[in-house]
Amino acid sequence: MSQNLIYLDNNATTKVDEKVVEAMLPYFSEEYGNPSSIYDLAHTANTAVRHSRETMKEFLGAKDAKEIIFTSCGSESANTAIKGVLELNRAKKHIITTKIEHPCVLNLYKDLENKSYRADYIGVDSNGDLDVQELLSKVDKDTALVSVMYANNETGAIFPVKEIAQKVKEINPETKVYVDAVQAAGKIPINVKETEIDFLGISAHKFHGPKGIGALYVKSGTMMAPLIIGGHQERGKRAGTENVPYIVGMAEAAKLAMEHLSDELTEVKRLRDMLEEGILSKIKNARLNSTAKNRVPNTTNIGFLYIEGELILLHLNDAGICASSGSACTSGSLEPSHVLRAMGVPFTALHGSIRFSLSRYTTENEVIQVIQELPHIIEKLAKISPFQKELGEILNNKC
Amino acid sequence: MSQNLIYLDNNATTKVDEKVVEAMLPYFSEEYGNPSSIYDLAHTANTAVRHSRETMKEFLGAKDAKEIIFTSCGSESANTAIKGVLELNRAKKHIITTKIEHPCVLNLYKDLENKSYRADYIGVDSNGDLDVQELLSKVDKDTALVSVMYANNETGAIFPVKEIAQKVKEINPETKVYVDAVQAAGKIPINVKETEIDFLGISAHKFHGPKGIGALYVKSGTMMAPLIIGGHQERGKRAGTENVPYIVGMAEAAKLAMEHLSDELTEVKRLRDMLEEGILSKIKNARLNSTAKNRVPNTTNIGFLYIEGELILLHLNDAGICASSGSACTSGSLEPSHVLRAMGVPFTALHGSIRFSLSRYTTENEVIQVIQELPHIIEKLAKISPFQKELGEILNNKC
Repeated sequence: MSQNLIYLDNNATTKVDEKVVEAMLPYFSEEYGNPSSIYDLAHTANTAVRHSRETMKEFLGAKDAKEIIFTSCGSESANTAIKGVLELNRAKKHIITTKIEHPCVLNLYKDLENKSYRADYIGVDSNGDLDVQELLSKVDKDTALVSVMYANNETGAIFPVKEIAQKVKEINPETKVYVDAVQAAGKIPINVKETEIDFLGISAHKFHGPKGIGALYVKSGTMMAPLIIGGHQERGKRAGTENVPYIVGMAEAAKLAMEHLSDELTEVKRLRDMLEEGILSKIKNARLNSTAKNRVPNTTNIGFLYIEGELILLHLNDAGICASSGSACTSGSLEPSHVLRAMGVPFTALHGSIRFSLSRYTTENEVIQVIQELPHIIEKLAKISPFQKELGEILNNKC
Repeated sequence: MSQNLIYLDNNATTKVDEKVVEAMLPYFSEEYGNPSSIYDLAHTANTAVRHSRETMKEFLGAKDAKEIIFTSCGSESANTAIKGVLELNRAKKHIITTKIEHPCVLNLYKDLENKSYRADYIGVDSNGDLDVQELLSKVDKDTALVSVMYANNETGAIFPVKEIAQKVKEINPETKVYVDAVQAAGKIPINVKETEIDFLGISAHKFHGPKGIGALYVKSGTMMAPLIIGGHQERGKRAGTENVPYIVGMAEAAKLAMEHLSDELTEVKRLRDMLEEGILSKIKNARLNSTAKNRVPNTTNIGFLYIEGELILLHLNDAGICASSGSACTSGSLEPSHVLRAMGVPFTALHGSIRFSLSRYTTENEVIQVIQELPHIIEKLAKISPFQKELGEILNNKC
């Protein structure tokens, strides 16, 4: 990897913090016991898992460490909660989510529709804000589950999940609420205590922990069937030998995220705003897509009219800059972003929309460099755009 | 961890090989790209995953790397295959397994029995060998799945899985066969090519890879529904951002296991036999439980008549020796081993049965030390056994 790489795709994945690697290392070849065994070596591993669970409790603002179960990723957390609730509640056949969820919720909902479930997908407005009233209007006696993300991966829009959970329960106290907080964790404070949220899922690799470990908050007293059946691990809620190094690593990443949380809201946000303003002021055919009322501090999404997004990304890559045109989990598909389409982003900007997502590692120099490089790239690509006439009008109008 | 620890519980989990740790390290904080992204950083991660898949293909003797999917553990592999087959084949309601499977299969089968499945559990004889004829006699037109482990975790007994798969298909070509090879991988050669096995699951932490990563072989052309629905990863068979470091680590562990496979069959077996013979010749109330026709080279299971197993383990622990009384995944339960019960091990030995499982790290000196220590421990415990009369008879008879 180039030393000079400018990594602005932290919503896809993050660099593992060196302190996280250090924290994990002893658990590979020294303290390698199986936490379920009874000798001292296992006791050390078991203690490490217990302490990590306490840290994750703090990170999510849960009441009790028993409410935290370890999973292998955000997708597993979502699948566990959603399938786990529905399996214990087979009489209710109505489920609600939004049009802009991550594929681990959206594709699961589509699968459930093929299994006799009735699903409502709630839309967002042109700013990316959720239509909460529409969501609440859909809740009825048959509603088993509402699944809403905490923050959107493409625009960074934050949804009022606590308010949604509370109001959903007022309409139907039996409806369970799952919150996909994968893009919120480490960026904004999470505090599930004293909310009506039943389940909340996160993934360590979005906050400088390793890929392949996640957590699921399950509110005390909430019943669910396990997705992975087997041994007694995770109090019967998730079988499989505990991934001790990564559990320790995720807890360390959570600890660091808590320490740096105020930086997210100040320094990361300052740099994000500088990047956003720099691009919008320097590039005439640029259009801000992420205009939600509340937004995570690290994310911006900008459309470049009449330009092909993949070409922008390839030129950015040549300049040592990593960004993305949407979720990494949907890349490879030629379809434009389902999030931007749900927002009604005009087709002229849809294919040329780029997400920049910063982290606490992002420096001001890096942001300055992107603001310098990007106009040349867009200018070059404008020259080969098949929409010369339309582009010409925009560029001239803005002069 | 003590430098002098004698670790003989390698069927519970293994020490991660230092070379595996080295192989993984660059993928945490340097080559940390999301393999699904399109820039160079992601390309490096993507290439690492592709090469690892090739290595796993070699390790399992598969035809094509596309037949390998990465999971988070052996339990996930089993749940994926079993649920994945049944979901696509809802008309067939009969499933077969053995009485001595790992909980990830047995508990899943029990769950399926509550969901209108008819399950047959095939027994073993007093040596721990499977009654293959009984198994085949149960296969009928309604049989959706046969799940048989390759090697048993407690006794090391190897089952003729290739022959079973072939004969099952002769009776019902539509029946799918899942092989839990968690305890075989790294100990004996696996070669799924040109067998009728449809699915085979393994877990890296049983062969000096990390906890929290596994693989599932899915025979080319075999249909299954994914357990974790979401992104397009693993060709749609398993969603979630790829755990690049552990995938690389598992492949390195597999490579090392292939290099050391002949040592398992010579040196590890020699030490296991030395340990077994040493214990049986020195301790009068010792009884060999693992007497199967074929056995993995690293495992022995010995019952100490009229002695409590947990007490033996605690004394072994005080002497710096790690062993176990059964599967780590069932520990904490006061029930004696379901495997030994299925073999009809007499109750006098059932509670005092200890599994010793060696690895390529085990040394002759360690084995000699265990043979020296254990008689003192058993002698001490015999003095406090509530079965003085019965023990006295055995000890005098054998004099």
